[in-house]
Amino acid sequence: MTLTQKSTRAKTALDRLLNVTQNDMNRVNDLILSRAESHVELVPKLAKYLIESGGKRLRPMLTIACASMFSKDNKSSNNAIHFAAAVEFMHNATLLHDDVVDESKMRRGKPAARMIWGNQASVLVGDFLLGQAFLMMVETRDLNALEVLSRAAAVMAEGEVFQLSKTSDLSTSAKEYDLVIRSKTAAMFEVATKVGAMAGGADEKQCDALGLYGTELGRAFQLIDDALDYGGTNGVLGKNTGDDLREGKMTLPVILALKNSSETEKALIISALGNQELENDILKQVISLFQEKGVIKQTSLQAQECVNSAKQALRTLPKSDMVDLLADIADFTLLRAH
Amino acid sequence: MTLTQKSTRAKTALDRLLNVTQNDMNRVNDLILSRAESHVELVPKLAKYLIESGGKRLRPMLTIACASMFSKDNKSSNNAIHFAAAVEFMHNATLLHDDVVDESKMRRGKPAARMIWGNQASVLVGDFLLGQAFLMMVETRDLNALEVLSRAAAVMAEGEVFQLSKTSDLSTSAKEYDLVIRSKTAAMFEVATKVGAMAGGADEKQCDALGLYGTELGRAFQLIDDALDYGGTNGVLGKNTGDDLREGKMTLPVILALKNSSETEKALIISALGNQELENDILKQVISLFQEKGVIKQTSLQAQECVNSAKQALRTLPKSDMVDLLADIADFTLLRAH
Repeated sequence: MTLTQKSTRAKTALDRLLNVTQNDMNRVNDLILSRAESHVELVPKLAKYLIESGGKRLRPMLTIACASMFSKDNKSSNNAIHFAAAVEFMHNATLLHDDVVDESKMRRGKPAARMIWGNQASVLVGDFLLGQAFLMMVETRDLNALEVLSRAAAVMAEGEVFQLSKTSDLSTSAKEYDLVIRSKTAAMFEVATKVGAMAGGADEKQCDALGLYGTELGRAFQLIDDALDYGGTNGVLGKNTGDDLREGKMTLPVILALKNSSETEKALIISALGNQELENDILKQVISLFQEKGVIKQTSLQAQECVNSAKQALRTLPKSDMVDLLADIADFTLLRAH
Repeated sequence: MTLTQKSTRAKTALDRLLNVTQNDMNRVNDLILSRAESHVELVPKLAKYLIESGGKRLRPMLTIACASMFSKDNKSSNNAIHFAAAVEFMHNATLLHDDVVDESKMRRGKPAARMIWGNQASVLVGDFLLGQAFLMMVETRDLNALEVLSRAAAVMAEGEVFQLSKTSDLSTSAKEYDLVIRSKTAAMFEVATKVGAMAGGADEKQCDALGLYGTELGRAFQLIDDALDYGGTNGVLGKNTGDDLREGKMTLPVILALKNSSETEKALIISALGNQELENDILKQVISLFQEKGVIKQTSLQAQECVNSAKQALRTLPKSDMVDLLADIADFTLLRAH
């Protein structure tokens, strides 16, 4: 395969995944909408505002992809549909709570739900979605998958608390950062792929392989997200550039930069870290410094390593078009870096 | 039985329940403490601050009581212990989230966790406890109980959103209020008793009877709580008197009073409802009005009806000391009214 072919495959990966999972995802989406219903008007109103706000639904698509890989007719079982919807509900519940925790104003290019209905409703509707997610899982009566999913719920919350407790903590290490992203992001990807494989009837080794693929994909995903928060490898400023810096989040770019800076440079970073009133001028200086130090590039390289591990995990599986597509999806996450 | 004997039985009911469940509750408490552990320091710190703050653990005690009722040696199975701990975790998770939603400053006579560690940590540690609760339930591998518990989690959140959406809504009916307390409070009591019975090996009718007992006990409990928020039947002001009024909560006393007031009286209630800066003078006027209208008495009478229904539900069960004790526990909830 030439480099151009490889790059084309990565670029088209998401569209191809959307395409092959379309029929099953229609069933998932129907289930999602029906389970967001409630006699309490505000519940579906708020839930659907978020659910229908144009997220790509990457996580449930991965569940469907991993389940259908093992079925004869490439169609997903009812269990897979339920797990996929539960995974999306869990993800949306954490988004609602995270926006409250991070005091975020925007989500997916629209005002965050909490800006319209308040923090209180966001917390409670998040709890509702979590409860509904568990109910959907229980309906599958698959206890092993239930264990995987409920463990992830606790681990994800733990990771968020860990991140919170490290806010603006200059001593945070790259290892601690990795623990945060493994818990808060990669655990959900791991669950999405693993329970898909379980629903599809994969054996234990295959479930673990797809779980590992999910973990590494999730780590890559979060690393790129964190690089993008500083404008990515091109250093181009977008709408949300610098949000992590303002919130005092100790992401890898900050950790690497602090390790490798003069006292004056450190002072600049520290002055910006956790500064809600951060001026654009200072932000630009920090981004220039990060480009100069190459820390965005290094973050992106670490994501590349995760992608390599993700693809490595896939190699233990029987060859199929779906396995190739999942490898391309891993490459695709890196394209977002610029 | 004389009236004095009856009153003594009610007064001593909680102590007797504490006594008969003590051995099993020691196991529950050990499990609770071990499952509040985490490599993230802040998690057990915050969780244990709440867990060890001297709540009576009425809900897990009910689980233990209902389970041991059906066992030969009056000891609870491992499943019952797990359910009891899960019930307490779910309850504590909702307390953490409720305090954020209600902006409460105090909980169980101490500053609320959010006043020490902030709203953010309270939301996330609540999520952690909810995840751990589900994990403990999954470990029992009892899918029927899991369904009951996960459904309750969604219903409770739904009830809280319903209450929130009715804040200061003068058109709220007594029926809507009942729906709120059935979801936000009674559902947890129902689950506590029902899964206890399930773990004890009760048949379906017995599980339903104890579930109904829990529902009616929970309704009585909340009605008395809501009466106490206006000083109870004696109208005596305590530390938290008037909190519901300040938060604009449409509880039964307010609903009944609005229905039965002159325009001037209505204006007084409306001026106080949802008024965070409520002066003590106005609060006293509202409480006098409520006493005069007899709405606290009526609320307490409605609680009495729930207690009667709770005891009625118990009558379908084989007679035993534990069943008698549960009947006394129902009477006990009413003693709090003054």
